Amino acid sequence: MPIRLVILGSGSATPTLLRNPSAQWLRIQDTDMLIDCGEGTQLQMQRYQLRMNKLKAIFISHLHGDHYLGLPGLISSMHLTGRTAPLQLFGPDPLIEILKNQFEVSETRLNFRLDFTPIRANAASFLGNFKHFTAQSFPIRHRIPCTGFLFREKHHLLNIRKEALKAYRIPIPFLQGIREGNDYLTESGETIPNQLLTLPPNHPVSYAYCSDTAPDDTYIPFIKDVDCLYHEATFTTNLLSRARETFHSTGAEAAEIAKKAGAGRLLIGHFSSRYGEVDQLLQEAIEIFPKTEAVYDGMELNL
Amino acid sequence: MPIRLVILGSGSATPTLLRNPSAQWLRIQDTDMLIDCGEGTQLQMQRYQLRMNKLKAIFISHLHGDHYLGLPGLISSMHLTGRTAPLQLFGPDPLIEILKNQFEVSETRLNFRLDFTPIRANAASFLGNFKHFTAQSFPIRHRIPCTGFLFREKHHLLNIRKEALKAYRIPIPFLQGIREGNDYLTESGETIPNQLLTLPPNHPVSYAYCSDTAPDDTYIPFIKDVDCLYHEATFTTNLLSRARETFHSTGAEAAEIAKKAGAGRLLIGHFSSRYGEVDQLLQEAIEIFPKTEAVYDGMELNL
Repeated sequence: MPIRLVILGSGSATPTLLRNPSAQWLRIQDTDMLIDCGEGTQLQMQRYQLRMNKLKAIFISHLHGDHYLGLPGLISSMHLTGRTAPLQLFGPDPLIEILKNQFEVSETRLNFRLDFTPIRANAASFLGNFKHFTAQSFPIRHRIPCTGFLFREKHHLLNIRKEALKAYRIPIPFLQGIREGNDYLTESGETIPNQLLTLPPNHPVSYAYCSDTAPDDTYIPFIKDVDCLYHEATFTTNLLSRARETFHSTGAEAAEIAKKAGAGRLLIGHFSSRYGEVDQLLQEAIEIFPKTEAVYDGMELNL
Repeated sequence: MPIRLVILGSGSATPTLLRNPSAQWLRIQDTDMLIDCGEGTQLQMQRYQLRMNKLKAIFISHLHGDHYLGLPGLISSMHLTGRTAPLQLFGPDPLIEILKNQFEVSETRLNFRLDFTPIRANAASFLGNFKHFTAQSFPIRHRIPCTGFLFREKHHLLNIRKEALKAYRIPIPFLQGIREGNDYLTESGETIPNQLLTLPPNHPVSYAYCSDTAPDDTYIPFIKDVDCLYHEATFTTNLLSRARETFHSTGAEAAEIAKKAGAGRLLIGHFSSRYGEVDQLLQEAIEIFPKTEAVYDGMELNL
C-alpha cells in the first residue's frame, strides 16, 4: 500500500479562499497522521472526506498560528463526536500548556487520552517506532524554534514468487517465515533456498516535511536521499530579501535543497497569499530540480 | 443609515461546510464590529467581502472554542496586513492571557494597540459610549460564564422639513442646532419655532445578542422591547433534555424569550450540526413568535 498524502492547506500565514494555512494528512499503511494544523483544518478534512477520528498522531512543526491554530478546535470536535481512542501529539513544549489552558477556560475534560511528546528544536529527535514506519524530527531554521519531520517506512518483507507458491504448494503458515528470509523444508525433506521462493521486497518509502525554514545545509543530512521532500517555497526569487527577513525560502532555494539532498521528488507549498497563480514559483524550482510539483488544497498523492 | 448585520457563522460547536461557528459582523453608522469569532471567521469575512481592518471593536461572549478560536488568527492577519489602528476587545478576563500567550510563543509584537476590557459575567456592565450607540453586556445562563450584548443607537437628531429649508432659506451652519431642537431666528428678527422646521427623529434601533444560553427570565429585563433579538436555538423541542444538559435553548424557548421581551423581531441560530435543514426548528419558533427568521452563513440584514 503506497504512502498517501493529502494537502489540506498550501498557503502561508494569511489564509485565502483558495489556500488554507498549513496542514497535511499522511497515511502510511494503516496509520493516519496529520502534519501541522492551521486554522480551518477540521473543515478541510470534511471538504476532502477525511474522518478526523481516524487520526492516530498529530505532528506540529512550530508555534506560528498558521501551523497550529486549528488544533484546539479539531481536538474539541474529536471530543464532541465521541472519540475515545488515544491521540498522540508531537510538538514544541509550550503547545500542551496552550491547549490545557483552553480546555480549562472552556471546562472541557477530554473523553480520550492526549499523549503529548515535546519535541526538542535544537537537535534531531527520534519520535516514534510505529508498526510500519519510524518518525523523527530535526531542526530547521526559522524565526522561532521549528522542526522538520522525516517519516521512513520500515523494510518491507520479501515478496513471494507466485509460481513458487504453486510449484511447492507451500502451506499458508509458512509464508510469513519465508517472507522474512527463511528457506522452505518440504514434506519430503527437501530444502528449497529462499531465493527460489521470493522476489526482492518493495522499496521502503520515505517522506520529509520542511516548513517553515530558510534554506540551510545543516538539515540536508536528515533528508538525504528521501523519496519525497515537501519544502516550503513562500516567495519567488525577486523577493529574496523578504525571504531572508522572514526566514523563508524561495522556489529556487527549495529546489537547491532537493538537489543537494538527492531527493526523488519535490513538493513545494506554503505560498505567500500575494500569489494567485504560482507558475513563476514552480518554474524557478523546475529549472533547478525538474521533478518539482506545486501543491494545492485538496491535492492527493501516492508516494 | 440602518444597522447592518451579516451572519458569518450560524452553527454551533462542531462546524460544518454549511455552517461556520458563531460570528456576526455588526455595522452601526460608521462603526464596524464583530460579535464572537469562531474558527474560520477571517475566511468568512473574505467570502462575504468584509474587510477585517475596518473593525473597530470585537465582543466575545464566552470562552467556548466555537465563539473565540478564530480570534488569534484574525488578530495575527490584521497584524500581517499592516494594521496600525487600535482595536477594542471586550471579553472574559482569561481571554487576554490566552492571546498574550500565543503572541509570546510566536514572538509576535502587534503593530497596533489591542485595548482589552474584561467583561464581568455575574452582572450587567456598561461597555462603551460610542459616537452613535452604546454597548452593554448582561449575564446569560450557560455552562461557563457567558454574557449577552445589547447595542442601542443613541437618540437621532430631529429631521429637517424640506419645505421649511426652502421657505426660510436657512443657512447651513444653523441646521445642526435646529436638528438638536433650537428655534430659528431669521435675519428680520422673526423667531420660527422648531416644530415648524422639523419632523420627529428616526427611531433609534437596538440589537441584542444572546448566545449561548438556557432560557431564563433573569435576562429579559436587559432585552426588553429590543428591536431585533438574536437568540440561540441549538435544538428542536424533542431534544429538550439535551438542551437542559448542555445549557442551550430550543427553537420554541427562543421564541418564548422573544415574546416575553416584546422584541420586534427574532433571529435564531447556533444550530446543532445534526440539523441539515432547520425548518422544524424555525417552525416551532414561528408558532410562538411569528416574526422569527433562521439565520444562515452569509445572511445580510438591515435592522
